Amino acid sequence: MGVMPKQLPVLDPPTATMCCAPLATAPLTAEDAKDLAAQLKAVADPARLRLLSLMMANEDLEACTCDLTEALELSQPTVSHHLKKLTEAGLVYAQRREGPWTYYRVVPDALAGLANVIAPPAAATVA
Amino acid sequence: MGVMPKQLPVLDPPTATMCCAPLATAPLTAEDAKDLAAQLKAVADPARLRLLSLMMANEDLEACTCDLTEALELSQPTVSHHLKKLTEAGLVYAQRREGPWTYYRVVPDALAGLANVIAPPAAATVA
Repeated sequence: MGVMPKQLPVLDPPTATMCCAPLATAPLTAEDAKDLAAQLKAVADPARLRLLSLMMANEDLEACTCDLTEALELSQPTVSHHLKKLTEAGLVYAQRREGPWTYYRVVPDALAGLANVIAPPAAATVA
Repeated sequence: MGVMPKQLPVLDPPTATMCCAPLATAPLTAEDAKDLAAQLKAVADPARLRLLSLMMANEDLEACTCDLTEALELSQPTVSHHLKKLTEAGLVYAQRREGPWTYYRVVPDALAGLANVIAPPAAATVA
């Protein structure tokens, strides 16, 4: 694996930027609908949902590429592809590197924002 | 448009059935990930997001196919196709018919459930 790099400093999560107000606030514009659909498409994949869940099930919301690859029984290139999609959507970020592995962490505010956009008004749900 | 049918009784929303616990509870199984991805895919489409938003922006969470077709500037068969996808995913239902039109309403608990599954633990988000 070559020379072991020094452990990198812990990175702050990227700022979560949400495209849109909650769906119930006002009819979504065509432009916002396109952006929101793209972010939801990044999540709407079985492997990517499992990756997010593996990170979120840890108290620190992160997981090592080594553990992610093993848990999903997928090749490392496939896992890297899915992590890239999630990173591009702003839902996870490469938090730190240890030797050949990278620790990925979810961007909690991005996922909370996404949940908030699709949630109906609280008054509409069964208590 | 043929004979005007009598107004149908208001229907109760179908019971919302969620496939999975919140992602942060425990690593998602492969089976649950497949079901959840299918439901998220139904939402991850610009036209369907706008349809949901048009319903949710009304206080009673419903909208007439006449208004939906006009607002999206799509053909009625296209709007019907998207409403069918959302209905199959358990996210909306045909609530009542008035003449040639149908009123569709969101299933609030299904959308709340979906939001709840992807939301991170409250402690992880910026207050």
